[in-house]
Amino acid sequence: MKDKITIYDIAKKLNITAATVSRALNNNPKISESTRKKVLAMADEMHYEQNKLALALKSGKSNTVGVVVPFIDRNFFSSIIRGIEEELYPKGYHVIICQSQEDEQKELKNFNALLNAQIDGLMVSVSKNTKNFDHFDHVLKKKVPVIFFDRKVDMKGVSTVTLDDYKAGYEATKHLIVNGAKRIAHLSGDWALDIYQRRMAGYKQALVDHNIDCPEGYVVKGQSDIGAGKKAVKKLMKLDPLPDAIFSASDFAALGAIQQLKEMGMRVPEDVKVVGFSNEPFTKFMEVPITTVDQSPMEMGMMAAKVFLEQVKNTSVPIEKNVVIAPKLKIRKSSL
Amino acid sequence: MKDKITIYDIAKKLNITAATVSRALNNNPKISESTRKKVLAMADEMHYEQNKLALALKSGKSNTVGVVVPFIDRNFFSSIIRGIEEELYPKGYHVIICQSQEDEQKELKNFNALLNAQIDGLMVSVSKNTKNFDHFDHVLKKKVPVIFFDRKVDMKGVSTVTLDDYKAGYEATKHLIVNGAKRIAHLSGDWALDIYQRRMAGYKQALVDHNIDCPEGYVVKGQSDIGAGKKAVKKLMKLDPLPDAIFSASDFAALGAIQQLKEMGMRVPEDVKVVGFSNEPFTKFMEVPITTVDQSPMEMGMMAAKVFLEQVKNTSVPIEKNVVIAPKLKIRKSSL
Repeated sequence: MKDKITIYDIAKKLNITAATVSRALNNNPKISESTRKKVLAMADEMHYEQNKLALALKSGKSNTVGVVVPFIDRNFFSSIIRGIEEELYPKGYHVIICQSQEDEQKELKNFNALLNAQIDGLMVSVSKNTKNFDHFDHVLKKKVPVIFFDRKVDMKGVSTVTLDDYKAGYEATKHLIVNGAKRIAHLSGDWALDIYQRRMAGYKQALVDHNIDCPEGYVVKGQSDIGAGKKAVKKLMKLDPLPDAIFSASDFAALGAIQQLKEMGMRVPEDVKVVGFSNEPFTKFMEVPITTVDQSPMEMGMMAAKVFLEQVKNTSVPIEKNVVIAPKLKIRKSSL
Repeated sequence: MKDKITIYDIAKKLNITAATVSRALNNNPKISESTRKKVLAMADEMHYEQNKLALALKSGKSNTVGVVVPFIDRNFFSSIIRGIEEELYPKGYHVIICQSQEDEQKELKNFNALLNAQIDGLMVSVSKNTKNFDHFDHVLKKKVPVIFFDRKVDMKGVSTVTLDDYKAGYEATKHLIVNGAKRIAHLSGDWALDIYQRRMAGYKQALVDHNIDCPEGYVVKGQSDIGAGKKAVKKLMKLDPLPDAIFSASDFAALGAIQQLKEMGMRVPEDVKVVGFSNEPFTKFMEVPITTVDQSPMEMGMMAAKVFLEQVKNTSVPIEKNVVIAPKLKIRKSSL
């Protein structure tokens, strides 16, 4: 499609070197005014458009930041992106977004596409199926700062902005206990992601601290979707004793759990109290609004952007900051 | 951060021209083997990384497609993007996404950031506040094909993939009539977007075809959000005669309408039947699931990608295709 005129074409026409053309176009004082005028006239005649990207190649600055998330259609991730944009846009940065769809190969290819776009920084929440992290090293070697949000990899010289998932799990479970629950089951997510391990650890510690048992079968691992929540409840409702509360590490699984409980003739919260995780918009629209953990995603995105801005101001030293955001429990009818 | 070694640096060290360095790096046969080896050795010594982007500048192909949507957190847009990716990814294309947030300046800057990323194509759903379309011409002048989806601008040589919004409005209204509604109000969106005008035209034609009046005040214009739905119902419930059905051009406005009706002690669907638009996920999770129009966004995205692939195969002639997708009514309890 694109038959681009290059500085080499202009140089050839004028019988000068490409370096001279380049210097003339960039107003280098070494170039005489007459040469500069000749070059500009020829560039104009040949419809040469000085590519901003080519300039970026020289200056090493594109004012563009790349963001990679597993999915853009989770409220949590789209709100983080909104936070990043709100912070960076007034500073003259543009944000381009890619989704990994939890696939290592797609994540790697996203990184390459973004590096080719000459991004000045990369903000990423790691795909849960990524096992090999060479593509992260590759970005760092190019001296492009990387900032992790929510899901991170332990790497030197990389800043992170995460939620205190342990505290979130602890507070959610404690809230159920305080409201009278005595047999609390937990729907956990994919343990490849440490966020789910930390939420579970908080849940377990809250039980221990309040002298409450965690009978076998009370922790159900599954995907974070409606189907997994339904399946988990089918399993839980065969146990003896029956749980009187569920803390789900995902709102979608919580929704599936509530639908399944209803189908089995159980009432929420009268028979089983439920707490979800993420504050997805639907949780507050429900017939019985769902208690959930708000992760302050806007704030998380703004923090990630702030850490990036600090990093680009201090180009000599890589900054390693670890910002931890406090969870906020949104108490609604499903757990009371 | 990035102190990039350029071909000029290599040229200077070897006392040859940058053009020679470039040709050597690109295996141009005009360059002697000894020069090529010298250049490669120096490039290696100086840690020069031949930038894929620089290659893209030469070849004019980056295998990257840019997508610009108003918001990524609307299910409709994120599903379209998923459709685009599913179609393009197996063909070796990567997708980078920007959001305009319905702002003309942001849209323009998105376009520039994407052009700088050397995109091979641009797929866009226009911001509703965009009045000046020069930035679209700018992209076309760069010979980057543009494809509109859902919201379009009338431009020569540009393909479009849209929903039959007229038919959608007609079918939704007819469905309410067939189910016994006799006084049907309409919540419309921003008339700057022709999609809302077409939905309303379909609504009006269905009323005419079934000899049903549209009393004054029955069409309420507003933003497509919960607040607008609530406000509209407050207005509608002062009218005489009272509507017994609402066709909303937005699911969020429909949700607001239902919440307001409930607050006023009206039952859905017994007192007022409601139909929304977009098949947002929450519509099926509600206590009374909401009847809505499915726009087949996955299919829309896949079609847009297919039109793009056809376009890049035929680089000589710009293809102007207008694909229209049929709406699908999802009938649920709120309208029965």
